[in-house]
Amino acid sequence: MIRTGIGFDAHRLAEDTPMWVAGLHFPDEPRGLAGHSDGDVACHAACDALLSAAGLGDMGSNFGTSDPAWAGASGVAFLAETASRVAAAGWHIGNVSIQVIGNRPRLAGRRAEAEKVISDALGGVPVSLAATTADGMGFTGAGEGVAAVATALIEAAHTIGVDRGSSTTHDQPQ
Amino acid sequence: MIRTGIGFDAHRLAEDTPMWVAGLHFPDEPRGLAGHSDGDVACHAACDALLSAAGLGDMGSNFGTSDPAWAGASGVAFLAETASRVAAAGWHIGNVSIQVIGNRPRLAGRRAEAEKVISDALGGVPVSLAATTADGMGFTGAGEGVAAVATALIEAAHTIGVDRGSSTTHDQPQ
Amino acid sequence: MIRTGIGFDAHRLAEDTPMWVAGLHFPDEPRGLAGHSDGDVACHAACDALLSAAGLGDMGSNFGTSDPAWAGASGVAFLAETASRVAAAGWHIGNVSIQVIGNRPRLAGRRAEAEKVISDALGGVPVSLAATTADGMGFTGAGEGVAAVATALIEAAHTIGVDRGSSTTHDQPQ
Ligand SMILES: [Zn+2]
Ligand SMILES: [Zn+2]
Ligand SMILES: [Zn+2]
Repeated sequence: MIRTGIGFDAHRLAEDTPMWVAGLHFPDEPRGLAGHSDGDVACHAACDALLSAAGLGDMGSNFGTSDPAWAGASGVAFLAETASRVAAAGWHIGNVSIQVIGNRPRLAGRRAEAEKVISDALGGVPVSLAATTADGMGFTGAGEGVAAVATALIEAAHTIGVDRGSSTTHDQPQ
Repeated sequence: MIRTGIGFDAHRLAEDTPMWVAGLHFPDEPRGLAGHSDGDVACHAACDALLSAAGLGDMGSNFGTSDPAWAGASGVAFLAETASRVAAAGWHIGNVSIQVIGNRPRLAGRRAEAEKVISDALGGVPVSLAATTADGMGFTGAGEGVAAVATALIEAAHTIGVDRGSSTTHDQPQ
Repeated sequence: MIRTGIGFDAHRLAEDTPMWVAGLHFPDEPRGLAGHSDGDVACHAACDALLSAAGLGDMGSNFGTSDPAWAGASGVAFLAETASRVAAAGWHIGNVSIQVIGNRPRLAGRRAEAEKVISDALGGVPVSLAATTADGMGFTGAGEGVAAVATALIEAAHTIGVDRGSSTTHDQPQ
């Protein structure tokens, strides 16, 4: 049993905000992505794709935009908790494909690094990260913000003999 | 044999128009989505994803934007007919994942209801609905309209021993 | 082993530029898509989806926006080379689903033709092409440019007994 999920996210660029995208910090960026959390559109789109594939709602229903527990949370923290909930629901992640749409930051030089950080947060699954500028058009082209789309494939864990219980937060006591 | 499909749709918000999104009516919304049909971007994106996965064209080629038979048709009607055509072509729907992008309506409180309506229209398949505001950017952030993206997974019915003839409009007489 | 990939691309419309979209030339269009290559958003989105699914990076990392070898290259040339690299990495393409977002050109009358051209470039795999106008909103609605989204499904070639060596550029000498 295989399922697909799609996710889209966008955040505004703001002054005096560190730039975190795809699990990486870009210290030389003059602006960063604003949000209740760290505004990491790549990680958020991946979370939405995974939650949607698993039929577990979306980031809003799972993490609440006003929930203080997740205020300022990193994209990687959301990914780890999402992976935990997806596993607890009986799913194994097949892979995640993410594309960032925006002028900045330049991800090309750090693509492998970002893929590893995101993959690690999800427990080692295959992760692909792509980037495009949308040719300077739209709100991303205007430098107003950054967007990301993602798709994920998951498979029922029991059909492939995977027991990933240790990666969940919902385990029965041993 | 498994196939994926993607769909994107967007409609303008208009005065004196009922708001239908994701198969639900939102009676308290001051504006609604305009279109030849009811403008339900979530259902239309799901239809396009399913038709594309099955290699059956898109909503335009199937339903015709000027075809009077579909004028004012509900999103649920398009979904039901799409499911029928996908089944008649020999495919079983694995799942559908939809994300609505816009400021309004607020879907969070009615997500499970919407998922059930869409799932029922498709014959009971797993459906996930997510929502995001794009942080107030772009044409959806400006309140000009609402967009949706969707992805679908389908499987050749014969490979999984599914006979869904009763859900199609192309059945042989019994 | 099945994997999914997503791709998004957008290019500006420019005067005195031939219009190539989805592998087809539209000689009657007054403007065309600008870019380092021919600006074929449909083919580029499909390439990004395939490369991402296979974990092979994106168009930028594979073909380089400033690489003279690919200056003015056709969308079909990128598709053929992408298919070659995906096959060389051990993957079989399941299918590709593409949706073009824009006012022009009108793809409806040439959809089957475009699907065949793209499919042929990819070695004969199932390809679906859809089109939508986004109801005249956003940068595509304003006639500033054209965008496309795509999703692809690939499968490990060894799991399905496919030997597509002859379609790769990395074959061992015979
Ligand atoms: Zn976000
Ligand atoms: Zn529509
Ligand atoms: Zn391009």
